[in-house]
Amino acid sequence: MAYSTNFSIEDLHFDNYGLIPAIAQDWLDGSILMLAWMNKESLIKTLETKNVHYWSRSRSEIWRKGATSGSIQLLKEIRFDCDNDAIVLSIEQKGSGACHTGEKSCFFNEIDNNVTNKKEKKNKPIL
Amino acid sequence: MAYSTNFSIEDLHFDNYGLIPAIAQDWLDGSILMLAWMNKESLIKTLETKNVHYWSRSRSEIWRKGATSGSIQLLKEIRFDCDNDAIVLSIEQKGSGACHTGEKSCFFNEIDNNVTNKKEKKNKPIL
Repeated sequence: MAYSTNFSIEDLHFDNYGLIPAIAQDWLDGSILMLAWMNKESLIKTLETKNVHYWSRSRSEIWRKGATSGSIQLLKEIRFDCDNDAIVLSIEQKGSGACHTGEKSCFFNEIDNNVTNKKEKKNKPIL
Repeated sequence: MAYSTNFSIEDLHFDNYGLIPAIAQDWLDGSILMLAWMNKESLIKTLETKNVHYWSRSRSEIWRKGATSGSIQLLKEIRFDCDNDAIVLSIEQKGSGACHTGEKSCFFNEIDNNVTNKKEKKNKPIL
């Protein structure tokens, strides 16, 4: 359940670098596409343009997602959490996907922590 | 698509505080329940016990989610992203929900950035 709220960007808690983590979630299937960072300016640009902007920590600049690749993200809904220090962006992903590798999601590396169970599952035929 | 990988915890990039952001996602409906932080020890405990452990930044201690509330999180799958600095936990949420407020998800505050569209949608009856 979501509640609309009288939002002020000043209510959000940005960290010591002026950043807040933002999770991009596919608006249709709910898959988590990426986690990136926003400063106030990138959040304001996102709200104003409905094109998701992040802060690039490696390049120290505002980054309109997909500006060079074409894999832009269109904002559908935005929420923040109970302690005001994280954001979820419900987005429509354009182009080839969210990840620079070409994958739809950046979270494609699975930690295989339960090999035995997985093998058992694979070997059990469905009768 | 997910790929199993030869995982070493040393491959992950922990920040200057020794932490990595971890997103807890409901394993059945894909909803994002919370974002919290892990250090190496909490990640190892999570993998070993299948009970999700975080690092509490406010209390500076390992925190087994639900230890006092009963709202524990059982690990189903765990993935990390393309630059090894964020984690997604696919979990079964027990108890009343992930949030200390009693909500299922901590992300219940919606930023109402498109009031006009929403009102239009509400006023259109389904015929």
